[in-house]
Amino acid sequence: NEDENAIATAPDGRSAAFGSGTGANDERSSTYFRRLYLTLKGKAYGWSYKFEPDFAGNSTNNGVATGSSNSSRDIAFQDIYISHALGSGDVFIGQMKPFRGMEELTSSNDITLMERPFASAAGTYGGGSSREFQEGIFYKADIRDFLVGASFFDLRRDNTRPTEGIGYNGRVVYAPLHADGKVLHLGLSYSDENPQTNGNDGSDDNIGSAAAYAGRRGPTVVLGTTKDGDHARTLGVEVASEFGAAEVQAEYMLQTVGQGDGARDQDIPAWYVQASYFLTGESRPYKKGEGVFGQPKPASSSHGAVELALRYDHAENKDSNAGCDVAIPASTGANPLPATTVAATHCEASLITAGVNWYVNPAVRFMFDYLKGENDRGFAKDKPQAFTARAQFAF
Amino acid sequence: NEDENAIATAPDGRSAAFGSGTGANDERSSTYFRRLYLTLKGKAYGWSYKFEPDFAGNSTNNGVATGSSNSSRDIAFQDIYISHALGSGDVFIGQMKPFRGMEELTSSNDITLMERPFASAAGTYGGGSSREFQEGIFYKADIRDFLVGASFFDLRRDNTRPTEGIGYNGRVVYAPLHADGKVLHLGLSYSDENPQTNGNDGSDDNIGSAAAYAGRRGPTVVLGTTKDGDHARTLGVEVASEFGAAEVQAEYMLQTVGQGDGARDQDIPAWYVQASYFLTGESRPYKKGEGVFGQPKPASSSHGAVELALRYDHAENKDSNAGCDVAIPASTGANPLPATTVAATHCEASLITAGVNWYVNPAVRFMFDYLKGENDRGFAKDKPQAFTARAQFAF
Amino acid sequence: NEDENAIATAPDGRSAAFGSGTGANDERSSTYFRRLYLTLKGKAYGWSYKFEPDFAGNSTNNGVATGSSNSSRDIAFQDIYISHALGSGDVFIGQMKPFRGMEELTSSNDITLMERPFASAAGTYGGGSSREFQEGIFYKADIRDFLVGASFFDLRRDNTRPTEGIGYNGRVVYAPLHADGKVLHLGLSYSDENPQTNGNDGSDDNIGSAAAYAGRRGPTVVLGTTKDGDHARTLGVEVASEFGAAEVQAEYMLQTVGQGDGARDQDIPAWYVQASYFLTGESRPYKKGEGVFGQPKPASSSHGAVELALRYDHAENKDSNAGCDVAIPASTGANPLPATTVAATHCEASLITAGVNWYVNPAVRFMFDYLKGENDRGFAKDKPQAFTARAQFAF
Repeated sequence: NEDENAIATAPDGRSAAFGSGTGANDERSSTYFRRLYLTLKGKAYGWSYKFEPDFAGNSTNNGVATGSSNSSRDIAFQDIYISHALGSGDVFIGQMKPFRGMEELTSSNDITLMERPFASAAGTYGGGSSREFQEGIFYKADIRDFLVGASFFDLRRDNTRPTEGIGYNGRVVYAPLHADGKVLHLGLSYSDENPQTNGNDGSDDNIGSAAAYAGRRGPTVVLGTTKDGDHARTLGVEVASEFGAAEVQAEYMLQTVGQGDGARDQDIPAWYVQASYFLTGESRPYKKGEGVFGQPKPASSSHGAVELALRYDHAENKDSNAGCDVAIPASTGANPLPATTVAATHCEASLITAGVNWYVNPAVRFMFDYLKGENDRGFAKDKPQAFTARAQFAF
Repeated sequence: NEDENAIATAPDGRSAAFGSGTGANDERSSTYFRRLYLTLKGKAYGWSYKFEPDFAGNSTNNGVATGSSNSSRDIAFQDIYISHALGSGDVFIGQMKPFRGMEELTSSNDITLMERPFASAAGTYGGGSSREFQEGIFYKADIRDFLVGASFFDLRRDNTRPTEGIGYNGRVVYAPLHADGKVLHLGLSYSDENPQTNGNDGSDDNIGSAAAYAGRRGPTVVLGTTKDGDHARTLGVEVASEFGAAEVQAEYMLQTVGQGDGARDQDIPAWYVQASYFLTGESRPYKKGEGVFGQPKPASSSHGAVELALRYDHAENKDSNAGCDVAIPASTGANPLPATTVAATHCEASLITAGVNWYVNPAVRFMFDYLKGENDRGFAKDKPQAFTARAQFAF
Repeated sequence: NEDENAIATAPDGRSAAFGSGTGANDERSSTYFRRLYLTLKGKAYGWSYKFEPDFAGNSTNNGVATGSSNSSRDIAFQDIYISHALGSGDVFIGQMKPFRGMEELTSSNDITLMERPFASAAGTYGGGSSREFQEGIFYKADIRDFLVGASFFDLRRDNTRPTEGIGYNGRVVYAPLHADGKVLHLGLSYSDENPQTNGNDGSDDNIGSAAAYAGRRGPTVVLGTTKDGDHARTLGVEVASEFGAAEVQAEYMLQTVGQGDGARDQDIPAWYVQASYFLTGESRPYKKGEGVFGQPKPASSSHGAVELALRYDHAENKDSNAGCDVAIPASTGANPLPATTVAATHCEASLITAGVNWYVNPAVRFMFDYLKGENDRGFAKDKPQAFTARAQFAF
């Protein structure tokens, strides 16, 4: 009986966050819609809910559609949960991100550069199926200078196979300074995932790390994955600080992927250092209840705010004797090359990203990033470059 | 010119009705989003409309995704119609459920146990493509102690093949007592479907009965289908009564599936008896205009309402000489087994379901069901068990 | 930070525009949902946005589903853009239709007959992937008696492959008379598309013309496409006039498809003449800012408005020596035939469409069209007929 309790539905359409990406080696240029959210959230009888389909899905993201000329679209939900206060915090039932790191948990509307760092689910959980959002039970509490989060989840997202294993995760943040413009943030997280490998339908649900070292339409090196359904264990460390218009943050993630009975585990460390500065003097607001930075309102309503940002990313697997595969997407242009996979004897990638963000107003942001990556394949070096732009409308 | 008449759009987001299902034989445990609706309905110039996409679609429902690790999502619309008053009732043009039985027509938000009975479209129309929602013209009128419904429809849903045949249906309900807590409900329905078998693209649109005898992630026996596009004819009988906090209902459906020229029809009877009782004293409201029961508001706003429920389901095909196929989904866990189909010489299944429902408030309900099924395959008995839970948020 | 700026979201659900189509030769009858839009649009800080998923997608439109009995649904977005005033007009970033002609740019809610003419993207850009909506930057300005539009775009839609080439387009309309009921409209448009043929994944992104000469579920002749990624260039001419309740319009499009180095280009002219008349005396409103006609409000609130319409369509490729393929969808009924492709030595099709529209009120419209097509295949003539109906609810 739906009508009696029609309370507080807040349709919150983030209309479009799209971008034109000029691909690596100037050969993979295209435009695409990166995110097309429709967010519904509300509250009824002390319970909250959030319902957020992303109509852009996975298929358009990585530059090579699965089908032929008309590829079917993949709807991948972001948050889908109901939540209720419990003790000093809130419990969430449904799908959301486990608490695996600072930039990982920052909304895509607020991230400083267009791509998340290697040391986030995009990289550290990028070696297998999408492990960014998971179905389970989550708890988060904001207590004085601390923030604690715990997750227990099925290793699946709403649009992936139903039986992929189980994981748990915890995160503690200590933020002795947490005023806007004066922040000191220290974080520690740990995750343990136990994937199930149901090879019966031809799929492989192992977990592992990858590095897209020239953005979303460039090449990706798969640094290593679990074998035979062995555990993946990931330790994360976060340090961030803001002084007025300047902000510096760094994260380190060490993922250990089990290789099955009798075989030695492999360690895959990934880390980044990122600095950003508002030429127009704003400070990113610090969201104490989430342990992440948000997006400032421009001080000037006429010309908006301008931010410069720089990041260095690095990820490596020294324990792999078999080397690493590098996936290179199809190129475009006059004589296009097909998508290929190249075997590298060495497993290491790094990436420098420099960006300029123009916050026109609180709803509209334009981003411009230059990326220069390096992959030492052992026998040769791949140094792709990319220039990307993004127009974002969110409210 | 859209803006001039923007009248009465009522966004009604049922945020999430998700559940954690522990599968049959403890080997198919998983979580999934069972329903993710977005409902829009409104009225303009004397016409009503309803528009209800279900983003959970079919693919995540039955526990085995179609594709590899990232399966494309299926959006299956529920109701999509426009309607207008006509005589003593209303005519509907679009997609909705034909009037095929009481628990079939009860909203998934209101059903007493997590799965609908064998004697509903889930079972009696479960042998082929989804026949729950159909495209066509529908009429419903509520006249004193009676309720009449008639349907004429294309045998397809919005997400199925376009040319599957034609059907019609009628239902009459007599409810001499229809006050909340004092109900006597007698119903009769009849449906005739004439499927088209267009084997040219490899599909088979025959209609028939099936029984999932351990819930949605357990095994399913296909009890029989039409052959060569012959008719399926289904007679349904409904009896229900409510006395205060107690409610009892039973339905019987007899589906006759034609076997083509010269071959004898097969009869597939399915029936159930269901009883439920509110420990906290509430009565389910009776929806006279639909001929179904709804969901009560908890008498206590602090601890909510608690309901116990029990159902016995049975379905059988005595006329099949060829026996019946049993589809067993892939298992999970350490040494997972692939999905298989087992031939049974006997065509019969039964299921006992015991449930506890906790109505926390009018928007939130938690359901816990225990299922114990039995399938006498002729040469062996399969007795799977399942424990399932569901968290539901609807308003 | 979504909540702070939740301004002016206008959920505008066009509930359902569905139709029952009786196919060519009385053998392809079915019903389907032609369009299922959800439109969100709004304004914030001087920027506008529009976000319009069409849940009916492509898969259900053309009568032959891609998969087996449950075909996955294709979500195809219509408009997705953000826009801002610039000079005398507006600039749009995102996905929308290039300015390629009058009936092409008319909303599907407002078009006079159920199918757009051959001289629109449905025909002139119907020979390859969907080229109706494109991603890019668009500009439109309404200056006294003139309307100018310019487009620069990636040759892809949100649900197609990312690397399909580049195009640009311009349109100028001169409307010396533009009062409702007294309109003279002259238009000129030009488009140049440079497709990329990335044959590496088996797809062919060439651009060309086709003609569905008995509606959406009838046969389609592919009149010609570009080869080897050569240019398609299209010139369009529009003439329209309204005198009271009568309206006449005609468009001519000449598409030239390049055949690669050294080969002669092929010219494919398409044109139509359309006349319509309101028996109830209304005039279609002229939308000066878009250069198209809209839909009138019925003068009578009791019985609505009734419109008669007639159109003749013609398209031809005289330059093809290889002839043209005709795609014939699978038929239905007792002895259905599979989908086939027939080679024709001649490349020409014409279509007469006669329609009656009943505008019940400003939200509800019923349409009834009779179509009689002709395709001279060179060795035989195909003269299919179709009767189609549509119930439309939009506001």
